Amino acid sequence: MRITIIGSGNVATHLAAAFKNAGHRIVQVYSRDPQNAALLAYHVGAEAIGNLEQINPETDLFIISVKDDVIGSIAQSLIKFKKLIVHTSGATDLQTLLNLTDSAGVFYPLQTLSKNKEVDFLTVPLCIEGATENITKQLIELAQTISNNVYRVSSAQRKILHLAAVFACNFPNYLYNIAQQLLAEHGMGFEMLRPLILETAQKVQTNLPAGVQTGPAIRNDENTMAIHLQMLNNEPDLKAIYSLLSQEIIKKKNAGPGHG
Amino acid sequence: MRITIIGSGNVATHLAAAFKNAGHRIVQVYSRDPQNAALLAYHVGAEAIGNLEQINPETDLFIISVKDDVIGSIAQSLIKFKKLIVHTSGATDLQTLLNLTDSAGVFYPLQTLSKNKEVDFLTVPLCIEGATENITKQLIELAQTISNNVYRVSSAQRKILHLAAVFACNFPNYLYNIAQQLLAEHGMGFEMLRPLILETAQKVQTNLPAGVQTGPAIRNDENTMAIHLQMLNNEPDLKAIYSLLSQEIIKKKNAGPGHG
Repeated sequence: MRITIIGSGNVATHLAAAFKNAGHRIVQVYSRDPQNAALLAYHVGAEAIGNLEQINPETDLFIISVKDDVIGSIAQSLIKFKKLIVHTSGATDLQTLLNLTDSAGVFYPLQTLSKNKEVDFLTVPLCIEGATENITKQLIELAQTISNNVYRVSSAQRKILHLAAVFACNFPNYLYNIAQQLLAEHGMGFEMLRPLILETAQKVQTNLPAGVQTGPAIRNDENTMAIHLQMLNNEPDLKAIYSLLSQEIIKKKNAGPGHG
Repeated sequence: MRITIIGSGNVATHLAAAFKNAGHRIVQVYSRDPQNAALLAYHVGAEAIGNLEQINPETDLFIISVKDDVIGSIAQSLIKFKKLIVHTSGATDLQTLLNLTDSAGVFYPLQTLSKNKEVDFLTVPLCIEGATENITKQLIELAQTISNNVYRVSSAQRKILHLAAVFACNFPNYLYNIAQQLLAEHGMGFEMLRPLILETAQKVQTNLPAGVQTGPAIRNDENTMAIHLQMLNNEPDLKAIYSLLSQEIIKKKNAGPGHG
């Protein structure tokens, strides 16, 4: 397939590389920042452009991978080419594109991607939505050339996934940050916690989280929780987080499965 | 070394197996529950006992791996053998043993261990403390026969590690649970989130968490946060967690490195 990439951020970079590796042709890479466009274009054997007026109409698919609030205006300048247009945003409705064209879809990778960190793209869940059944099928086929985890997901479901990802990725990373800070304040290095963090994530690869919950809160070990809260007396912010999350774990346990 | 294991829980089970595999001799396994004692003893070629009066004095080390509140009373009944006694608790001072004997130490594995989940014990951080320099050295040597991650850690530091582990393991697992629940309520399976959870943990194996923080809060993306909070209007508990953690991420970002 001939693919044009609009954007040069983390998602654009990983998608472009995965498509290139799967044998597709990346026609052009557009970015407002000519250097970013040039770098990504070089990596995937495409032409770099810094202006949407330089778009080559000889393509099959536009992938818009830019900040949510400019997806609409970028799409507006692409509709005249009458090609399939998709965006890659978890938080943006398909409707944003449907307001402009019927030839639209979504291609949302549910993974935390950084330019300088390789991932095995075959494991990245790709959440697909199309304006029509035909477009959905076409996008699913395309997605399956680069990933083994392809899902058909509605706009409403995708919003839930995006929210759930905050709980499953962004917030845990912040809690790792707190733990690192606690250790550093007492002369210990973060490497001591790395095996624990990895094993915690590995445990839920084959179990549901509720089945492997451990710690003082789930044991209702009031003595340990009181000691921990006392240790955090000089860190009111951390104390508030410890308190709230422990209470929620206890509450959910008492509610029993299916009730909370 | 000849080792006697007091307890048959998760930590006792993994430690006994690791010592056995490293060529040490497990003399006896004690548990109040005779069936648990028998099962673990069978696995490590030891004698199972259900009564502390059956203790065989021909041993070099007692490892007490029981609930925190009975460590003292168990140690009390072992001091007459005049052998080295260690406990495996993150939250218990060495002093609990020192009140009874000078021949004491701590052998704390900083990992989430479940009986039915194998771990590569060589990667498990072992936090060692001894009543004397000699005992510390002896315990470190012993620890190095089963793990490549051996640390000398004071009682005060160990308490911090135990607290940090709640932030790095127990709380993230609870957040995975919330994410799983959000997906289930909208007809989606937890397998969609597993690659994201694993990659989030893998990223901090080579980076510090602060350097790889992503999500709406760190971008100060007020629009997305407002939408997420609105989606949680019917789940006040989840809304409170989302609100607090997002505020903390923003606050820490604004405080800058070293000020939060």
